[in-house]
Amino acid sequence: MAAEVESLENILEKHVPADELKEVFRILYGRQLEPLNFSEAATKLATDRKVELKGYAFAKAPMQTVAARIVRVGAIQNKIVLPTTAPIQEQLESLHRRLGEVIDIAGESGVNVLCLQEAWTMPFAFCTREKQPWCEFAESAENGPTTKLMQEYAKKYNMVIVSPILERDEIHGETLHNTAVVISNTGAVLGKSRKNHIPRVGDFNESTYYMEGDTGHKVFQTQFGKIAINICYGRHHPQNWMMYGINGAEIVFNPSATVGALSEPMWGIEARNAAIANSYFTVAINRVGTEHFPNEFTSANGQPAHKDFGHFYGTSYVAAPDGSRTPGLSRTIDGLLVTEMDLNLCRQVKDTWGLRMTQRLPLYAESLAEAIKPDYQPPIVKE
Amino acid sequence: MAAEVESLENILEKHVPADELKEVFRILYGRQLEPLNFSEAATKLATDRKVELKGYAFAKAPMQTVAARIVRVGAIQNKIVLPTTAPIQEQLESLHRRLGEVIDIAGESGVNVLCLQEAWTMPFAFCTREKQPWCEFAESAENGPTTKLMQEYAKKYNMVIVSPILERDEIHGETLHNTAVVISNTGAVLGKSRKNHIPRVGDFNESTYYMEGDTGHKVFQTQFGKIAINICYGRHHPQNWMMYGINGAEIVFNPSATVGALSEPMWGIEARNAAIANSYFTVAINRVGTEHFPNEFTSANGQPAHKDFGHFYGTSYVAAPDGSRTPGLSRTIDGLLVTEMDLNLCRQVKDTWGLRMTQRLPLYAESLAEAIKPDYQPPIVKE
Repeated sequence: MAAEVESLENILEKHVPADELKEVFRILYGRQLEPLNFSEAATKLATDRKVELKGYAFAKAPMQTVAARIVRVGAIQNKIVLPTTAPIQEQLESLHRRLGEVIDIAGESGVNVLCLQEAWTMPFAFCTREKQPWCEFAESAENGPTTKLMQEYAKKYNMVIVSPILERDEIHGETLHNTAVVISNTGAVLGKSRKNHIPRVGDFNESTYYMEGDTGHKVFQTQFGKIAINICYGRHHPQNWMMYGINGAEIVFNPSATVGALSEPMWGIEARNAAIANSYFTVAINRVGTEHFPNEFTSANGQPAHKDFGHFYGTSYVAAPDGSRTPGLSRTIDGLLVTEMDLNLCRQVKDTWGLRMTQRLPLYAESLAEAIKPDYQPPIVKE
Repeated sequence: MAAEVESLENILEKHVPADELKEVFRILYGRQLEPLNFSEAATKLATDRKVELKGYAFAKAPMQTVAARIVRVGAIQNKIVLPTTAPIQEQLESLHRRLGEVIDIAGESGVNVLCLQEAWTMPFAFCTREKQPWCEFAESAENGPTTKLMQEYAKKYNMVIVSPILERDEIHGETLHNTAVVISNTGAVLGKSRKNHIPRVGDFNESTYYMEGDTGHKVFQTQFGKIAINICYGRHHPQNWMMYGINGAEIVFNPSATVGALSEPMWGIEARNAAIANSYFTVAINRVGTEHFPNEFTSANGQPAHKDFGHFYGTSYVAAPDGSRTPGLSRTIDGLLVTEMDLNLCRQVKDTWGLRMTQRLPLYAESLAEAIKPDYQPPIVKE
């Protein structure tokens, strides 16, 4: 197979002359963003630890009667560290160590709210359909070892951390869930948000491991702003994004795990569309690299059995309510994307575009109530 | 002001080497589409009449028990013909003539379903906030001169025509509406669909001319497939797109009029996101050129009074349920985009991605019913 390209942006910057490149990026990415400067310490840490560190500031939203609400948001994408054949405990600890290295860089970069990738403590093993040993990665959202470790980092860096894990709910039947744990900058567990929409596509066999989330569309009021989490496949569902917006979210994270052939052309579309439609910031995070499993499996696509899920293409990015977005992180290596945003931009864009005012929610509440009836007759006009 | 660039695709094709260009377009536009071949007659007509003619075929969706449902869809973007100072009747007739020229090309290209741009019979004069003389462009959806003309073309070419006009509803208070008239290939008026969401942004002062549409989310069963129309600003509202999908649309047209500085970075996002989320085809049509008006007006943006609305950037395109899309038409000239699609792809993508099955509509019906209550308390988690 040909080597994976590093990024779309690299190709464009390599070949397109500066004046035309500016127009290309205006059409593709909207208003130009200022790059962030990082401290020498942060830059050195990133280099030493082989982490791509990129930063951008979104447009400010100056107001007369409301102070600026500047927040630094971090998004981490990473490969697994050990082979999937290593003992589960060692795989977990290797990821704890690696993510600790990246969180240090986020701390040095002044990040206030940080989000890790979906199920970050494990390989994305659901493609195998094997329950053992992978289910052993599941742990308590409230007091599992990963949550405890993240609580330490949250306190150390005065940072809200969103930690998406495979959850085991010991209270409710020892069931599994795909869950983001939200840890306050005080170190307290603020709560959790479960994946609302579970895929049944390609090798995303997650519906055989856990059910649709039952935590609704909670918004977490942190010291730095109101955040929510739309996990992975939920990004394909605009109504899911919409409810987080209705409930007041200013930043919605989309921790994901998705592979090239299937979803890459959609990746730049969905989280960005949600930012525009809901007048909030979205943070799209995808894992990176190719994960090989011990036993072969088939992909229900006529191809022979194989041992990997395909390439997770990274390309994590952040989109703003004004339609602008950052470039993506690398398609091939670990990275930390830091963005500086003024949360007042959400309100200013609401006032400018009026998309919330013109949303006509009562019409849709009524339309959906009708549409879900078993005897619904859609309004189809025939000659 | 610098000249408008012709298109994003032109810049990329000019500078990026073929192997890398392929990867750029894969990431940006998804699965590669085959160009359509047109008859010599069609090509000659297009050249003679100075119309950019482009065509692409989307992926086929072969099935064993259902015959292929191949449809050719046409989308027209155009400039106005006469200056806005010309008598209203002459402006109207000049557009009737010009669009007739383009419809002939669509007929020669085998188009089955054709859609024109929003309010195609007039300049997009709502920026002026002047009611006269612009309201004189309004006409009956059922039996105005434009509908009568389109009925002739529909019969002549055995073609469904979606004709978006400024409607005057003589029965209901002589009110104005922004309306798409759907004309069957038999020549019968199948019905009409009004703009559901009216902008209050920039110079889109349409809310001073007409109210939110009251035709709901009708789907029109034509001989060639089930179609619906989401006019212009409705593209920013995913719930609007969703209801057309719920009601069974296979192709949703988005006739629009929108200008560069405000919306261009969002243009490639929204209709395409809708195609993905709802497993149907979307056809995004934008007018082209700069329209100058007789009297100066201001734009509520601190800039001096002026006489134009800015540049309508064309770039009409079609997106498919599998995430692929066509390149855009020109940013500067009249064009006809023809796409060939197998409507069975909608069902195949529904089965592959499961986005309709996993939509959880009862959850959202319930959530919206709660959210619209005056005393709604969003689920906000605090420390």
